[in-house]
Amino acid sequence: MSLPAEFALIARHFRPLAGEGALGLADDAAVLDLPVGRRLVIAADAMVEGVHYLPDDPPETIGRKLLRVNLSDLAAMGATPLGYLMTTVLSRGTPDDWIAGFARGLAEDQRAFNLTVLGGDTAATPGPTCLSLTILGTVAPGAALTRAGARPGDDIWVSGTIGDGALGLKALRGEVSDDETGHLARRYRLPEPRLALGQGIAGIASAGMDVSDGLVQDLGHLCRAAGYGAVIEAASVPLSGAARRLVMGDAALTTAVLTGGDDYELLFAAAPGVADALREAAAGAATPITRIGRIVEAPHEVQVLDRDGASMPLTRGGWSHF
Amino acid sequence: MSLPAEFALIARHFRPLAGEGALGLADDAAVLDLPVGRRLVIAADAMVEGVHYLPDDPPETIGRKLLRVNLSDLAAMGATPLGYLMTTVLSRGTPDDWIAGFARGLAEDQRAFNLTVLGGDTAATPGPTCLSLTILGTVAPGAALTRAGARPGDDIWVSGTIGDGALGLKALRGEVSDDETGHLARRYRLPEPRLALGQGIAGIASAGMDVSDGLVQDLGHLCRAAGYGAVIEAASVPLSGAARRLVMGDAALTTAVLTGGDDYELLFAAAPGVADALREAAAGAATPITRIGRIVEAPHEVQVLDRDGASMPLTRGGWSHF
Repeated sequence: MSLPAEFALIARHFRPLAGEGALGLADDAAVLDLPVGRRLVIAADAMVEGVHYLPDDPPETIGRKLLRVNLSDLAAMGATPLGYLMTTVLSRGTPDDWIAGFARGLAEDQRAFNLTVLGGDTAATPGPTCLSLTILGTVAPGAALTRAGARPGDDIWVSGTIGDGALGLKALRGEVSDDETGHLARRYRLPEPRLALGQGIAGIASAGMDVSDGLVQDLGHLCRAAGYGAVIEAASVPLSGAARRLVMGDAALTTAVLTGGDDYELLFAAAPGVADALREAAAGAATPITRIGRIVEAPHEVQVLDRDGASMPLTRGGWSHF
Repeated sequence: MSLPAEFALIARHFRPLAGEGALGLADDAAVLDLPVGRRLVIAADAMVEGVHYLPDDPPETIGRKLLRVNLSDLAAMGATPLGYLMTTVLSRGTPDDWIAGFARGLAEDQRAFNLTVLGGDTAATPGPTCLSLTILGTVAPGAALTRAGARPGDDIWVSGTIGDGALGLKALRGEVSDDETGHLARRYRLPEPRLALGQGIAGIASAGMDVSDGLVQDLGHLCRAAGYGAVIEAASVPLSGAARRLVMGDAALTTAVLTGGDDYELLFAAAPGVADALREAAAGAATPITRIGRIVEAPHEVQVLDRDGASMPLTRGGWSHF
């Protein structure tokens, strides 16, 4: 009796990605040890075809984005990657070529981020492809950066640039025209998990998280975890050149930048006195950081100020699936 | 600005399930320590509406089955449960009642199996609901039961009864009529992870796994891992009373029993000399075990003998998604 296609698929595409502890993806579970003196950090994020990525995105970047949005959760905790498990529920009739490209992307990013696959599951669905990844990392005891802990007076910082992902999605959908260099589309398809920065600021910042569902909404989470509020200045939010050109041409796109999601930058709070230490950590991680506002007493409220210091009305803070 | 529905859903249904290390499901990742001197065991299994469960199955049993098929992977390794992460990609328009029932089932089994949720993700899909769970457990160093290690002459054993799940699915679909007590449907919807048995035989058996995709196919995996073959007697395969009645009425159902999947029983090999120790472990775990055949030199081949000692032709060994 020959093996069914499911096992051939796993052997062909996913087994080459397996690392130590994975038992060749041939057992019921992986068995591994944590590095001595480290705590386990673990998170899971799903991506659905047509919801989190476009059906005609290259399969290489879909695999890499799946890994990177999960690595971004480790970055937000100041953790170091260890490995991952993945369940791929593939739309019936997904071509073998697509799976090969998907796995090729994963292999590339496994090398870039120094981790391997530990296990998972593969199935088929009559619906759109549904991918789920569980990421494992480690931190030293007491070193994890969490969302709670921001205090009134803390500065609010973000890494990199905000809004590229949301504008990149608009560009890929043809809703905005100016993405000549493809920078915005690349940022939508290939977010950059800020692992080195997360590890660098973990002992310095008072609270941190990654921006995945929109800057304003995610800042709201940081505020709720602390029991305080925040005021940020829209003009301070760092934009890429491509994003700035679009926003200058259409001021309404500011909302997409502030609430659109898919940034995967770090958002963190820190006492003003540690600003130099933060800048040093950012330089060490070769990742730009920008101060965009401050934590205030007003509980749970996120206020966005325009250039005149007036509060900007935003009908929603970010992305919701429901 | 109020929180979007996604976060309300998580807070209402899933936060009450969160345990130590989960940071209230309010952070980017969970942070936890393994019990001192234990290794991490980790696996992931997905379930798709209409593929792994029936759309009109009660949501309570869907949640419990999702947890149990994953716990069965821990059982197969001889591991003790620690916690889990779950991504729920819900079909658009899934009623809140359904999610409440799903979470209620999880809560019940969390108590039964002594574990809690550590994290996850929630999203919506235009397709069928797609659930993915990553299970964490621990074993003592050197104690994990793996698939490799069976030797010619070893006895082959299974726990419980085989075929109930496959026949239960047929009964729920109306393809067979005799499930008066609902035993087979219950076994399809609520498999029993054999955790105590797995822990009990881990130091005794030479190799083990759980039967999820069909007895013959899964025995093939055990054989391939060892580089040997197996001969089993169909008449020795343990059946429940309900399954026996169906098979006696229609001999063709034997194929469904041997290859149908959804058993979640343990399948293991052990030297004949440890049979008494196995029986003692089984008694301690209050789980019946039955010897069904032996490992043979013939590489990779699984032979099923009928009552006359003739090899039964089987067109497939088990379930494949592709």
